[in-house]
Amino acid sequence: MKNEVLIKSLYRNSEEYLSKDIVISGWIRTLRASNAFGFIEVNDGSFFKNVQVVFDNNLENFKYVSKLPISSSIKVIGTLVATPDAKQPFEIQAKEIVIEGMSSSDYPLQKKRHTFEYLRTIAHLRPRSNAFSAVFRVRSVAAYAIHKFFQDQGFVYTNTPILTGSDCEGAGEMFRVTTLDLHNTPKTEEGNIDYKEDFFGKETNLTVSGQLNAECYALAFRNVYTFGPTFRAENSNTARHAAEFWMVEPEIAFADLQDDMELAEGMLKYVIKYVMDECPEEMAFFNQFIEKGLLDKLNHIVTSDFGKVTYTEAVEMLKNCGKTFEYPVEWGIDLQTEHERYLTEEIFKKPVFVTDYPKDIKAFYMRLNDDGKTVAATDCLVPGIGEIIGGSQREERLDVLKARMAELELKEEDYWWYLELRKYGETKHAGFGLGFERLIMYITGMSNIRDVIPFPRTTGQSDF
Amino acid sequence: MKNEVLIKSLYRNSEEYLSKDIVISGWIRTLRASNAFGFIEVNDGSFFKNVQVVFDNNLENFKYVSKLPISSSIKVIGTLVATPDAKQPFEIQAKEIVIEGMSSSDYPLQKKRHTFEYLRTIAHLRPRSNAFSAVFRVRSVAAYAIHKFFQDQGFVYTNTPILTGSDCEGAGEMFRVTTLDLHNTPKTEEGNIDYKEDFFGKETNLTVSGQLNAECYALAFRNVYTFGPTFRAENSNTARHAAEFWMVEPEIAFADLQDDMELAEGMLKYVIKYVMDECPEEMAFFNQFIEKGLLDKLNHIVTSDFGKVTYTEAVEMLKNCGKTFEYPVEWGIDLQTEHERYLTEEIFKKPVFVTDYPKDIKAFYMRLNDDGKTVAATDCLVPGIGEIIGGSQREERLDVLKARMAELELKEEDYWWYLELRKYGETKHAGFGLGFERLIMYITGMSNIRDVIPFPRTTGQSDF
Repeated sequence: MKNEVLIKSLYRNSEEYLSKDIVISGWIRTLRASNAFGFIEVNDGSFFKNVQVVFDNNLENFKYVSKLPISSSIKVIGTLVATPDAKQPFEIQAKEIVIEGMSSSDYPLQKKRHTFEYLRTIAHLRPRSNAFSAVFRVRSVAAYAIHKFFQDQGFVYTNTPILTGSDCEGAGEMFRVTTLDLHNTPKTEEGNIDYKEDFFGKETNLTVSGQLNAECYALAFRNVYTFGPTFRAENSNTARHAAEFWMVEPEIAFADLQDDMELAEGMLKYVIKYVMDECPEEMAFFNQFIEKGLLDKLNHIVTSDFGKVTYTEAVEMLKNCGKTFEYPVEWGIDLQTEHERYLTEEIFKKPVFVTDYPKDIKAFYMRLNDDGKTVAATDCLVPGIGEIIGGSQREERLDVLKARMAELELKEEDYWWYLELRKYGETKHAGFGLGFERLIMYITGMSNIRDVIPFPRTTGQSDF
Repeated sequence: MKNEVLIKSLYRNSEEYLSKDIVISGWIRTLRASNAFGFIEVNDGSFFKNVQVVFDNNLENFKYVSKLPISSSIKVIGTLVATPDAKQPFEIQAKEIVIEGMSSSDYPLQKKRHTFEYLRTIAHLRPRSNAFSAVFRVRSVAAYAIHKFFQDQGFVYTNTPILTGSDCEGAGEMFRVTTLDLHNTPKTEEGNIDYKEDFFGKETNLTVSGQLNAECYALAFRNVYTFGPTFRAENSNTARHAAEFWMVEPEIAFADLQDDMELAEGMLKYVIKYVMDECPEEMAFFNQFIEKGLLDKLNHIVTSDFGKVTYTEAVEMLKNCGKTFEYPVEWGIDLQTEHERYLTEEIFKKPVFVTDYPKDIKAFYMRLNDDGKTVAATDCLVPGIGEIIGGSQREERLDVLKARMAELELKEEDYWWYLELRKYGETKHAGFGLGFERLIMYITGMSNIRDVIPFPRTTGQSDF
């Protein structure tokens, strides 16, 4: 219909529509009617807020309207009128209300507050609630901000493969992908599974990281990024782990660990600021109902210069800070969340990059420092969460990389193409990985990863 | 380094740098040296074109430079000088050339032309070639254009799940995802595979489409889109099929088939124009070396009003056109590529939407027309390729949808949440699917899908 307008436009450009006849379509969020007037809060999904529709309950053509169940879809033809004395800035005085789809009265999302746990069982309906409409619009806007940040600087978006015959770095438990008949798997003469019969002719898994592939493209395009799903078949039932999640992995050539940290800091600040600018209504909601102080926390991130400290220095700080940790701190340990949070929240009071970790707790491809004991890795720690980004400069020296692989008993033939990147014009290069859902949890204050993924997949859970 | 500059900036803002000292880093594409001078074509991945570096071959500090193998990485410090009499607009007169990574002399991408088939065997290096650097930059820019097109209109980007316990619509053969021990799969008492022991506690596959999940979100946010990987385990070894590919699936509420076609036409024109505007050098390359007439073809798409014809009319046209097709045309058949191409290339001479297909050749969720025989589906056909987009209005009437599912023997309990969308405030809604790689093939003129995916996965092929 030609003069149909989105509710977002009513709020953003109300002058254009005030005192004019307009048409909106949407779903009923609330409805109350007296003998004289009826009031409907309509939401059309384009905007966090509803618009109030007023109708004359005495008129014949509104006869059925006051009996409509919540969530019915309607089209409203009426006049937009300013309401200077009311809470909302304007309302629509209805001339006609067309019922498009009458909802059943057992609609599960009635006005009373539901637990997030319950709402997960109706994942197909929960985006219609305030909290989840805010979460998933913010997720969308944040995803776009990530693309915009990189594309504006000429980074090439690289779709690295989901199905992979290599297991990257042993970064985590992998899902097997197969078309074999599981009732009757073909066997070789030695009694092993005969993967020659499988779709790809060999063992194939779901990727845990696109990094090694992204490195190939960074050595062609200089600056690239991936943004796609990755998988872990880890049997961990926590609020921070999902079997399927999205990762952002930029990779930059002619760049070292300093450049990498600069990029990570710039990206975090850009995305957080972009979301706060584009979604003020959603962010105010989170600040009020989900995490008190959220906006202060995020503004602090955007305006701080992130700190930098080496792992070795950080370990000394933690040992001397007077606090007793559950896991004692010793040089060589993998820092735990309690250590990370103490560093960023208590010692630095702002985000901090910890650099130069012991090589034994980090992956084979990280660049060995001159001390022979540490690698040019960094984790970015932020208040309230601990690690949000992990990155490193990559080992570009073929001999050093081969020696490290031998130490870890990785087979060179499995990585022939990765090694060739070091043979044909290697450069220093670096990159990092950001778990996208962790970022969305951070920005929204939502505390369970299941509540920032539209249809989450976790141990025992793949419904919808 | 502070005054380091990307080659793209040299071309786009050359005035800023002319006659100034600059630093660039990149890889040697070609190198030739006489006794007096040496000439290096350097590419840094930021831009399709190289920049020429000239050095004085007599000077001691360039002693090793003239012997560098192709693909070595270097840093060049020098002055950008205009070259009004030469083919290229400027060159860098080198003061210093630092060797960062010396390539091995057996670098496989020497200047001679290689077949695309050969280049697939070195997928880690092929983005360094002209053709593939153009293809994969265009792929990145087109992906961004898709996001921008939808986000500018307030569409919510929805990440639908990759791992799924439902098989959507039987749209294609699926990959099984499992963590079971394939040597020794657990069995139930009846001798079936005991999926209770598997990671998700039931059979799980890789998605073939996010549509059903996207519909849930369209009925909350009104306008949404997906953009992510999808999978087909079909054993087809063609130039147009891959086991892993990316799909774009918008879904719009309060919208019918006409709105759907308008959206599809707008999106195609927007993305094609955006790529032509942003990547003129790449597009000129494709036009010259990959598909003669490509730019004319694409300009024609951007400026045409797409045609519209019903399936029934189209069948009549094909039957009466005087051409003999390999597959004879009869009402009820699924149109073949030869028919589709004849329609768009010979009859309409522009893109055309064919609408209202027989229900028996279309999916269960498509809206039944009043004739009881056809559904509100559409395929968008474009010259040179045939179908590029398939869409439909969705069946929003619960009783009609259930009847159709019963006809096809689909179990209601498998689709309980999908059916509930029709119970709690249904609206007319519609959507379409675009195979992203098909679009990239169309825009670049590349004729094999393996050459528009960084690391393609096809039957028997999951290397890298």
